[in-house]
Amino acid sequence: MTESSYEVRPIGRVESPLTDRASAPRQGDEGAPDAWLVFREDVHEGLRDLRVGDEVILLTWFDRAARDVLVVHPRGDLARQRQGVFSTRSPDRPNPIGLHRVTILAIEGSRILVKDLEALNGTPVVDVKPVLAQDTAER
Amino acid sequence: MTESSYEVRPIGRVESPLTDRASAPRQGDEGAPDAWLVFREDVHEGLRDLRVGDEVILLTWFDRAARDVLVVHPRGDLARQRQGVFSTRSPDRPNPIGLHRVTILAIEGSRILVKDLEALNGTPVVDVKPVLAQDTAER
Repeated sequence: MTESSYEVRPIGRVESPLTDRASAPRQGDEGAPDAWLVFREDVHEGLRDLRVGDEVILLTWFDRAARDVLVVHPRGDLARQRQGVFSTRSPDRPNPIGLHRVTILAIEGSRILVKDLEALNGTPVVDVKPVLAQDTAER
Repeated sequence: MTESSYEVRPIGRVESPLTDRASAPRQGDEGAPDAWLVFREDVHEGLRDLRVGDEVILLTWFDRAARDVLVVHPRGDLARQRQGVFSTRSPDRPNPIGLHRVTILAIEGSRILVKDLEALNGTPVVDVKPVLAQDTAER
């Protein structure tokens, strides 16, 4: 197996009232606030078909995560048995990519307001994708 | 905005009969084959709670993608109007992270067989996450 690595270049940042990991909600549907995504001007054209009301998948980079962690207590709850990180959504994992399904509430140029985002202020944004039927289909 | 970048270190590779981007299915539910995910031994412990039958979200790095692309013809169809990449699932995008919802068919040590994966042979695997209810809920 070759040992290449790849460079993630943030396309923007999260602007959020959440600044403290300890007090942030674990998931967006657990009381997370609305947050602005502030995109770099040089990716603006890629945003041109996003619309208010769209549901999108937002990928972030948890820049405050520990990358050498392979087992965690789910949700940080010490009473719960430790699990392999790939069975959890812990931000602490080898490649700390955050996956968030959010709804667009407003668009102002290269700033996009989304509903219920649990990412901390300053978190790098790395991608935005549309939700496909196959993401949500009952299997 | 600071201009930090981050290093993605693959945790494994895809082993698949698909070798040619032009002939690969666009999405996993469009006739993609089963494929093995071959993980690095040093992340093995993180896999320990994955089970046959689990549905997971697989993140890959499209290492053959073009990163300087901001508008594309959806699904490569020149008859369709170009769209901003963040409204498409094109592999060509600033951070070419692939998102695949797959079901685990078999586990053999650090090798995991998944159903219907459209990623090409050799594609780097960067993360595995459980599917949460909020990923699939009708909104």
